[in-house]
Amino acid sequence: MHRDVRMKGFAERADVEEVLAFVEEQARALSSEEVSVSACAGRVLAGDVNSQVDVPSFSRSAMDGYAVRGEDTFGATPYDPIALRLLGESMPGAPFAGQLTSGFAVRIMTGAPLPEGADAVVMAEVSEESGERVLIRDAVAPRKNVGAPGEDIRKGEQVLRAGRRLRPQDAGLLASIGAGRVACVRRPRVSLVVTGNELLPPGAQPSGAQIVDSNSVVLAALVARDGGVLQPHEILPDHEPRIREALCAAAGDIVLVSGGSSVGKEDHAPRLLGMLGSLDFHGVAMRPSSPAGVGRLPGLADGGSGAVRERLVFLLPGNPVSCLCAYEFFAGPAIRGLGGRSLRWPHSRVRLPLARKISSAIGRVDYVRVAVEEGRVVPLATSGASILSSTVRGSGAVIVPRGCEGMPEGEAVEVLLYDETAGVGVS
Amino acid sequence: MHRDVRMKGFAERADVEEVLAFVEEQARALSSEEVSVSACAGRVLAGDVNSQVDVPSFSRSAMDGYAVRGEDTFGATPYDPIALRLLGESMPGAPFAGQLTSGFAVRIMTGAPLPEGADAVVMAEVSEESGERVLIRDAVAPRKNVGAPGEDIRKGEQVLRAGRRLRPQDAGLLASIGAGRVACVRRPRVSLVVTGNELLPPGAQPSGAQIVDSNSVVLAALVARDGGVLQPHEILPDHEPRIREALCAAAGDIVLVSGGSSVGKEDHAPRLLGMLGSLDFHGVAMRPSSPAGVGRLPGLADGGSGAVRERLVFLLPGNPVSCLCAYEFFAGPAIRGLGGRSLRWPHSRVRLPLARKISSAIGRVDYVRVAVEEGRVVPLATSGASILSSTVRGSGAVIVPRGCEGMPEGEAVEVLLYDETAGVGVS
Repeated sequence: MHRDVRMKGFAERADVEEVLAFVEEQARALSSEEVSVSACAGRVLAGDVNSQVDVPSFSRSAMDGYAVRGEDTFGATPYDPIALRLLGESMPGAPFAGQLTSGFAVRIMTGAPLPEGADAVVMAEVSEESGERVLIRDAVAPRKNVGAPGEDIRKGEQVLRAGRRLRPQDAGLLASIGAGRVACVRRPRVSLVVTGNELLPPGAQPSGAQIVDSNSVVLAALVARDGGVLQPHEILPDHEPRIREALCAAAGDIVLVSGGSSVGKEDHAPRLLGMLGSLDFHGVAMRPSSPAGVGRLPGLADGGSGAVRERLVFLLPGNPVSCLCAYEFFAGPAIRGLGGRSLRWPHSRVRLPLARKISSAIGRVDYVRVAVEEGRVVPLATSGASILSSTVRGSGAVIVPRGCEGMPEGEAVEVLLYDETAGVGVS
Repeated sequence: MHRDVRMKGFAERADVEEVLAFVEEQARALSSEEVSVSACAGRVLAGDVNSQVDVPSFSRSAMDGYAVRGEDTFGATPYDPIALRLLGESMPGAPFAGQLTSGFAVRIMTGAPLPEGADAVVMAEVSEESGERVLIRDAVAPRKNVGAPGEDIRKGEQVLRAGRRLRPQDAGLLASIGAGRVACVRRPRVSLVVTGNELLPPGAQPSGAQIVDSNSVVLAALVARDGGVLQPHEILPDHEPRIREALCAAAGDIVLVSGGSSVGKEDHAPRLLGMLGSLDFHGVAMRPSSPAGVGRLPGLADGGSGAVRERLVFLLPGNPVSCLCAYEFFAGPAIRGLGGRSLRWPHSRVRLPLARKISSAIGRVDYVRVAVEEGRVVPLATSGASILSSTVRGSGAVIVPRGCEGMPEGEAVEVLLYDETAGVGVS
């Protein structure tokens, strides 16, 4: 079934769409886990949430001022204030215990329970305390400045739906309805298998024929962006038994293999993956990243829920731009999907005209690094898959679809921006 | 100097612009700290970085194939291949030790050093090994498929500038030039002082006159979004000595006070801030959040660099939407600024027409919660500052500037979206 492509090249390459359809099929959201309400912002909700309580559960003041019966204030003006007797006070967490009757007022703070018998709150700004009396300088209608029980959230109401990526305020709302722990989609665990005899660990100085492994640094940051939890990893030599061992032992839901994925003599990972599990795709009609591959390994028992899930494996070419690109096309969507997020690219986008044409070829998807300069999109001349600095100098990437020979100068193209939204002027 | 506004209301309110100008003045980037290159993605670079090395430091193969002297292959075609003698191999991290002369080839893998004497690489796909010979089926020009030393980064080149928010690939590039630790702007430490007799901690069930503190949950997530490091905190009663003590002890660069900021009888924080440091602003011409305040407290010695920095204090009203809004207007920019990030709102934006008019008042900035429905912007009817669910149901906010009475139906307005970019279709 599996053809050894080492030193022979790919007989044929899969289309990006095919590979993506496979990834989409595999990347269904993981099971749920309980997360503290204080830590659930940014997580994906695993089930619908209905409130078991009214928020607030009591009538409350929306102002600092005086709780009154509204009708007692009718006719009050700055020139003809109405005097009420001060009966006590209602503070947040320390309500007034008694009953308010006509002619009386209770000092009340924002958020404090409205005393029984009161139906409105006069703002402090139009009132004046004087001994046991309060002068009211403006009339207030019943229900004014009062929040009814359930005005924020009603008991039984559905407040959030499954699949929601929780905003900061969503987490706050969950706290306000008394949620302690929240069922969220489990974050996918990602193992990294970095191979290469030439690689030094990040932090080392490059020297002689040795280069520093930059892929694991880039991948770690991308995995974090996409909500994955990276497992500890080490750099392996291009030694078949070591790579086999690492693939067998790689814990988690996703395994990223950096390097050794192509058709070189020491590219062991594709064949090993075919033997240990399945090599579903190897070689993709795209540039860069054409040696990328996707496969599966049997799941590992982890003493958890019992249901063992296959591990999804991404073979990422070792060239740094190919590695980044293959991650963005295939591994990123898988990690986001397993975590319950949208599979789509998370980048901010702008649509701007091309300053120069982009050439591509029909049948191939291109990931073109570009700069945005003076409102125009400039394809970067240096397009080599090994030139990581192009993704540092560039502003983002333009994807040229498979059916397209290229894009002419002046055409408006969508740029996937490397930086988060810059933000443009709020006064 | 400080006027006690309790139960009297604000005599006058500051303009949002004034407060922002003050915040901008105060929120200069903090000093730097060394961060491991593996953890620097997302951080802000404190200084320019120049490379001390060429990347790569050697000529390398861009392909899997055979290193040759290009001129030896001239005239080779599939029908008339040229045979070269196989001399050995060059692997990544294990270069060929000898010299290549005319008539010879060296098997070479992508990224491996080019042997001395070779000047080009023939791709594996157009070559065939047979015993000690390699048949070359296509001519290759000198320098073809070879990366020159420094093709990615040249020694001495400035690779990144101070102030850059490091992308995943920036971190990779720093690793590739041998950076071990990277000078990044220190992340601002943020203390939270949450006050309110009525408050139960997140995770508790609301009951009676007690409500659950949702603000600390929302603020924690916003502080994390903005790159701040939240210090541990507890909920305090509205008890002046306790709040005084908390303000004095609040560690860090920024202090957020949630609740007790307004003109109520138990709103101690503004007066305490005025006494212990300075209350630079209290009362802002905006809706919601008009009781918001900004001030400073003397810095605390922390056994660190010695230079003690004033603490910037934000009084955030206790109503959840006011708290969110005051954070977004004033505290968020300060935290981002201290951390070296852009002060501007980090939200994604869309510009769409209003489905219904928005009313405001000249002299006041409004933060209007809106839903985006069928491509139009619908202001939410429930606009109370206590209705947190409006920020959960809504899609984002429209800011109505101070000089504006409102916005008519059909006008295109900018919406600050609560969710990150949704991402719209990359094939």
